[in-house]
Amino acid sequence: MRPVAVSLGDPAGIGPEITLRALRAFTPRGGVLLYGDPASVPRRWSAARAGQAWRALPSRGWKHGRPSACSGEAAFQAVSGAARAALSGEARALVTAPLSKEALHLAGHHWPGHTELLAHMAGLKPDEVGMLLVGGGLRVFLVTRHVSLRSALGALKPAALDKALDLCARGLKSSLGLRRPRLALAALNPHAGEAGAFGREELDVLGPWARRRARGAGYSLAGPLPADTVFVQAVRGAYDAVLCLYHDQGLIPLKLLAFDSGVNVTLGLPFLRTSPDHGTAWDLAGTGRASCASMVEAFRLADRHGA
Amino acid sequence: MRPVAVSLGDPAGIGPEITLRALRAFTPRGGVLLYGDPASVPRRWSAARAGQAWRALPSRGWKHGRPSACSGEAAFQAVSGAARAALSGEARALVTAPLSKEALHLAGHHWPGHTELLAHMAGLKPDEVGMLLVGGGLRVFLVTRHVSLRSALGALKPAALDKALDLCARGLKSSLGLRRPRLALAALNPHAGEAGAFGREELDVLGPWARRRARGAGYSLAGPLPADTVFVQAVRGAYDAVLCLYHDQGLIPLKLLAFDSGVNVTLGLPFLRTSPDHGTAWDLAGTGRASCASMVEAFRLADRHGA
Repeated sequence: MRPVAVSLGDPAGIGPEITLRALRAFTPRGGVLLYGDPASVPRRWSAARAGQAWRALPSRGWKHGRPSACSGEAAFQAVSGAARAALSGEARALVTAPLSKEALHLAGHHWPGHTELLAHMAGLKPDEVGMLLVGGGLRVFLVTRHVSLRSALGALKPAALDKALDLCARGLKSSLGLRRPRLALAALNPHAGEAGAFGREELDVLGPWARRRARGAGYSLAGPLPADTVFVQAVRGAYDAVLCLYHDQGLIPLKLLAFDSGVNVTLGLPFLRTSPDHGTAWDLAGTGRASCASMVEAFRLADRHGA
Repeated sequence: MRPVAVSLGDPAGIGPEITLRALRAFTPRGGVLLYGDPASVPRRWSAARAGQAWRALPSRGWKHGRPSACSGEAAFQAVSGAARAALSGEARALVTAPLSKEALHLAGHHWPGHTELLAHMAGLKPDEVGMLLVGGGLRVFLVTRHVSLRSALGALKPAALDKALDLCARGLKSSLGLRRPRLALAALNPHAGEAGAFGREELDVLGPWARRRARGAGYSLAGPLPADTVFVQAVRGAYDAVLCLYHDQGLIPLKLLAFDSGVNVTLGLPFLRTSPDHGTAWDLAGTGRASCASMVEAFRLADRHGA
């Protein structure tokens, strides 16, 4: 079986450390190709192990807990190298430890984050990829993400819903191997609007759209369903994923069920990419106290679904 | 110890049945005074037990699963009688099984629900009482409730926040006996607005308001805190209750943690009142299949905190 490519992320953050600690708990079948600086990991974590091959990228001048041009450049080289391995087919999946937008910018690489860089490397536009959040038996896909709640309300148009549904349904099939994903759309208003008494978006936009798209090429879509019960139904197995209309609608249940073990899966790329759902945690870098639970889950997902 | 007064609610719903089944699982110290029609409960549930005294209110003409003027009148008599016992001091707390607004209206009693009727009986205005939702180790208090999300956004003014904070802090002290409640305010926007990048409500309204009210007569208030982590912190013990800005913000985590065992506590009344967080469930009435878990928790809270 081919290995999984791994970017150690920003060496000044917790990425190298949690990666190596996670691999002690779980190593994907076929082993891993580690892109990063072996010197960024304390010896006690990095001692050579079966299934770990280094693609060493020496880096200098960074310090734990301090984002810098040096650390940003190291992160850029790590993710670029690992992504090329996934794109070329040398690796069966990509797992990325956290990097920092700030350090990336200091190094002159003007990407908002991993996702946009990976989309670009794969020849895709940023809106042709999307993020599935996985944890605690729940999968959520956000229709809107890092915008104010007020902006999210204004963005709930059929075109945006179409794009999210298509990305999510296709991605669950291609990346996670679900044959016929069963999706649910979370409603916007309390009790899904209670027939218009608590808001009309369900009657005017979400309901008609969902009925039109209820069935399609290999997926089913239910809803809009009251948001305070749809996640319970999903966790109990009624749905494979929930389309969420705004950031906190999806993140509140996800963090409650998987506070330090959530995983992000990028949908739309030509390869499977998973990552832990946290950042570089500058304050914990180098202390050995950061949890590697989320990274372990990222490896497990990559192993299970990496073709 | 004085007994707990109990309204059996609408006899056509699941109220009488879940009440008697719940009492088999847990009977408050001092026993209960049951307000309702003994004939509304199958004999197998209602057989006389220690600690159960009936204040029998015969009713006629209703059928399981059918809201009617008869069932609404019976529910009105049950809750009125039980509330008078709590108001007079004969009972140390009030527990109410579900009633139906529809049946109440058919009987000519034009109350939107229990809370408004109880406030009226206690000589209070509707906005002098509020609802605390309790379950799964979490307590949430809603600043806005049964309105559209768009209306909720418009309602987040200091006056509304003041009212919610005062009701919640005072109620936690008087109803639940917390000496110095530790409250958290959930933010509105993703990442609490990320310094204005994802919305300005935290900078312009919520932050300044929370700083002004951070400390007061016997309470503390933290926040606005990112909504996707504040509930995890509260469940882990950092806060006694979370002030939530809109319905689903509080109900998503609550239902996830306590799907069929959530309890409502009315704050602001001169006595403790608890109730299960579900309705009459017409489709289950008379079948014996309704869960009494929420009613059991309502009895437990009444027993623990009823003076």
